[in-house]
Amino acid sequence: MIEGLNAHLKDAFNITFKNESLLDEAFTQASYVNEHPGKNLKYYERIEFLGDAVLQFVVSEYIFKRYPKLPQGRLTRLRAAMVNEQSFASFARECDFDHFIRLGKGEEKANARQRDSLLCDIFESFVGALYMDQGVTAVITFADQVIFPKLDEGRFDEFFDHKTELQEVAQQNGPVTIDYELESEDGPDNDRTFRVAVTIDGTKLGEGVGHSKKAAEQTAARVALSQLKSQQG
Amino acid sequence: MIEGLNAHLKDAFNITFKNESLLDEAFTQASYVNEHPGKNLKYYERIEFLGDAVLQFVVSEYIFKRYPKLPQGRLTRLRAAMVNEQSFASFARECDFDHFIRLGKGEEKANARQRDSLLCDIFESFVGALYMDQGVTAVITFADQVIFPKLDEGRFDEFFDHKTELQEVAQQNGPVTIDYELESEDGPDNDRTFRVAVTIDGTKLGEGVGHSKKAAEQTAARVALSQLKSQQG
Repeated sequence: MIEGLNAHLKDAFNITFKNESLLDEAFTQASYVNEHPGKNLKYYERIEFLGDAVLQFVVSEYIFKRYPKLPQGRLTRLRAAMVNEQSFASFARECDFDHFIRLGKGEEKANARQRDSLLCDIFESFVGALYMDQGVTAVITFADQVIFPKLDEGRFDEFFDHKTELQEVAQQNGPVTIDYELESEDGPDNDRTFRVAVTIDGTKLGEGVGHSKKAAEQTAARVALSQLKSQQG
Repeated sequence: MIEGLNAHLKDAFNITFKNESLLDEAFTQASYVNEHPGKNLKYYERIEFLGDAVLQFVVSEYIFKRYPKLPQGRLTRLRAAMVNEQSFASFARECDFDHFIRLGKGEEKANARQRDSLLCDIFESFVGALYMDQGVTAVITFADQVIFPKLDEGRFDEFFDHKTELQEVAQQNGPVTIDYELESEDGPDNDRTFRVAVTIDGTKLGEGVGHSKKAAEQTAARVALSQLKSQQG
């Protein structure tokens, strides 16, 4: 067993593995196995293959259902923003998975533990192990804690064009006028903050703050979208 | 409703849709929708996005479980051989899906109905609709009829290196000698047929026929593998 991993998963995600050897496999790199011959250890690569497919599927289904008006091209771009090495590596760090990886000494010295490619692999292999141990529902529950909330926190805002979506949603029943107005600008030149309001036919539906006008507008559009959706029921 | 599609799915695959409008959506191209404004028709693209992810997942899990010794790299190559435009287009043709697609007149004239890219899309969108209507188990049952048997029929033999796998499986408990022997060669120069036998430590375990020695060896290795696996298990 990898020390502390069980307790961490229980504390952080309320996950308890039935088959703990799957967890060992998911967090063990080939370099570690090679340094411990005769112990019959397994490394994560096969399980990562499975986890990668499970994640792609679970994320696809989630955004497909959550954004019922989003056309295919934008679904594909949003998925690509969510399902990639950099984003999975961030999730792995946020889950503190980096502490639990079993690495060979050479890899450890080469600082592999903080390499995005390894952290992404481990995130996928953890999900593969979770799927094998407890099925797809457990993976969705985990993604509900780790992946999906990032959509609301604006993690993918630059990939996900809320302004275009707001236009599409707001104009479903005919043309409307959408305006973005700069309300204020503060801070020094190298750290400026912009506050933008969005109005639809003159009614203010949201505000956004960002380090560029464009970012503030995207956030304002996201807020307005959730307003509109809660009104539509 | 698309005429005859329901009856075809029932006859060929014993599939009956609860929500038939999903089927209409899955078999309708945007060009057809554009030619029928005001009918509020949907086209297949979003549902294809979902079906693509479902297929990737179902195929990944199947080969992961079926080939428990296959390393990640070869799982990835095998999946790529199974999950691609050309192979999905073939499946769509074998399922007679091409007859049921609703196309615009321009696309019809341009012979889009037989284009691999469209047929691949339709195969994916059908699976997306099936998943939405009946869940993942129904998709696996469909794949058990349409996709997975192709592995045994040798459809992916050139991507799937049976000779390497036979070596791995046969040598699990120590070194053995594997020989491929040409048993016969027939036919005219431009249509030659080769028959190859494979022996392990002198015992013949399989035979293969092909239009090249290499193809015949791969088939022989596949036969020997299924022999070995039935003996082991």
